[in-house]
Amino acid sequence: MNVIRLKHAPSVVGYASVVGKKEHEGPLGADFDLHDDAGTFGMDTWEKSESEMQRLALNTALAKAKLSPDAVKAIFAGDLLNQCTGSAYGLLSFSKPFFGLYGACSTFAEGTMLASLMIGAGYFDVCAAVSSSHFCSAERQFRFPLEYGGQRAPTAQWTATAAGAFVLSAEGAGPYITEVLPGTIVDKGIRDANNMGAAMAPAAVDTMKKYFEDTGHSPDDFDMILTGDLGLEGHSIAVEFMKASGCDIQNVYNDCGLLLYGAGTQDVHCGGSGCGCSASVVCGHIMRRFQKGELHNVLYIATGALMSPDSLKQGGTIPGIAHLVRISSERI
Amino acid sequence: MNVIRLKHAPSVVGYASVVGKKEHEGPLGADFDLHDDAGTFGMDTWEKSESEMQRLALNTALAKAKLSPDAVKAIFAGDLLNQCTGSAYGLLSFSKPFFGLYGACSTFAEGTMLASLMIGAGYFDVCAAVSSSHFCSAERQFRFPLEYGGQRAPTAQWTATAAGAFVLSAEGAGPYITEVLPGTIVDKGIRDANNMGAAMAPAAVDTMKKYFEDTGHSPDDFDMILTGDLGLEGHSIAVEFMKASGCDIQNVYNDCGLLLYGAGTQDVHCGGSGCGCSASVVCGHIMRRFQKGELHNVLYIATGALMSPDSLKQGGTIPGIAHLVRISSERI
Repeated sequence: MNVIRLKHAPSVVGYASVVGKKEHEGPLGADFDLHDDAGTFGMDTWEKSESEMQRLALNTALAKAKLSPDAVKAIFAGDLLNQCTGSAYGLLSFSKPFFGLYGACSTFAEGTMLASLMIGAGYFDVCAAVSSSHFCSAERQFRFPLEYGGQRAPTAQWTATAAGAFVLSAEGAGPYITEVLPGTIVDKGIRDANNMGAAMAPAAVDTMKKYFEDTGHSPDDFDMILTGDLGLEGHSIAVEFMKASGCDIQNVYNDCGLLLYGAGTQDVHCGGSGCGCSASVVCGHIMRRFQKGELHNVLYIATGALMSPDSLKQGGTIPGIAHLVRISSERI
Repeated sequence: MNVIRLKHAPSVVGYASVVGKKEHEGPLGADFDLHDDAGTFGMDTWEKSESEMQRLALNTALAKAKLSPDAVKAIFAGDLLNQCTGSAYGLLSFSKPFFGLYGACSTFAEGTMLASLMIGAGYFDVCAAVSSSHFCSAERQFRFPLEYGGQRAPTAQWTATAAGAFVLSAEGAGPYITEVLPGTIVDKGIRDANNMGAAMAPAAVDTMKKYFEDTGHSPDDFDMILTGDLGLEGHSIAVEFMKASGCDIQNVYNDCGLLLYGAGTQDVHCGGSGCGCSASVVCGHIMRRFQKGELHNVLYIATGALMSPDSLKQGGTIPGIAHLVRISSERI
């Protein structure tokens, strides 16, 4: 049995999302708490802007939860920046026990999973999970400085300028984190950094298959199966691979990278990506739909590509990982 | 209460360390399981060498624990490389649920802490914690390519070519992980990347003070208080700051960065550093001393500097963190 069912499922008592201009102009724009059209959030470098987004996200999530920062007993956070400085600087001012994570774009699910497991075990009563990405800091670090104006491949995804934060508590009225399944690293030999969806889809499939095998559930038991940011390319691969293994997810399947931007109206090629992509979609759109009673049972499967620019230059493949978190309106 | 006492303390059932030439020639040389004088471990890039060291460390730890890789239910791992690729590629072949961590040089304690908490809660019966650093990959990434022959500042530390792995189990004859205290990010405004000891020492002091306040213990209750890698400069700052707060740790205090290399005989300036430094000292030297009955009760406090080369170029300070793990020969 790989899936862990949380006997005393923690409740999401606060959630907040902070985004940039493009994300605010997208179809989910109204669901986000804060945005800055300049994308700077008052800072003088993109990296500092990203840190500030994490600080704002957690601050807002705490305010919405009507909790003071003192209530938080531990923070689980990470981002895409080298040495995960988005989190280290952004969350410094909270002065709380800090677990730094690196799961690439899967980080928000990794943090939510670890925070939930800790609360479920009674080690902490209130924890936070925070994650972010910024288009401008990511482009500079992973690809080219913006000024270079590099061409983008058709299979490329757009790193979201976005951050999300959950405040999770042992007590609360839900939604609840009811089950988790930590991902295993899967490497199918993809080497194209402009096709992350293809690199990460096999990991999502691996995690989904394990989940359904372990629990006996079928996709139709859920209102939504939501991958992190496979984008257009990865989404279709995931559907196809799941179908080949006898499991049709099409009716309930969506992807944060596809939800975040307008298909055809916003020039993002295969969709959104980055640690902040699924963090903001879940902490914005998905949580609001839970609140409205439109969603009751969601499998959130955040995917991450665990390569580095250097590893690709050395001929490395792109290993993927996918962490699963089940969000339910009732304890199960 | 910040300190978490593990009611059913997990046992260290396997441990292994893998080092390079300088580490093998140092005073602890005989305590390490594997070494390679070339430092390549058969690979054609330093980054791949570092990954291979993680693979070898976990493989050896499992062999010493007489466990097959299948017994491991989750791996907690990280390193200093951008996007933590040392772990992602190095541990890929184990095909196990994987939690990627970034705690800079504190990563081994962070991983051991999380693995122990998970086992203590009954989520997994056997977990691994793995961490590494490599002098050549770290120099290239954080400072200069080796060929440049950059001068080193007197307060600089030497990134260890080293990896360590723990296999932790719910059952076993010890030593046990009996208490943990996750660190809080502390930033005292140090900006000198050649003086990491000074940047990290306040975090170690913060964690130590919290531990002694919380538990009522005094330093003399321990055979050893062992910081991660504060080196010469950080060690003396930690002693002084602790004394100023009315707590004399001098009799029992040592530092992995000081233990790893020969004082005066090996040209490492202020001592060792890197994720692999304390990982290898703990998984090599310290575990052997437990085995021989020379140690019974150790506070291991691994420190990490959470800045990046980019954040320093942007005028950032160096935030530090220190995670505490208590290792005891008996359950407490």
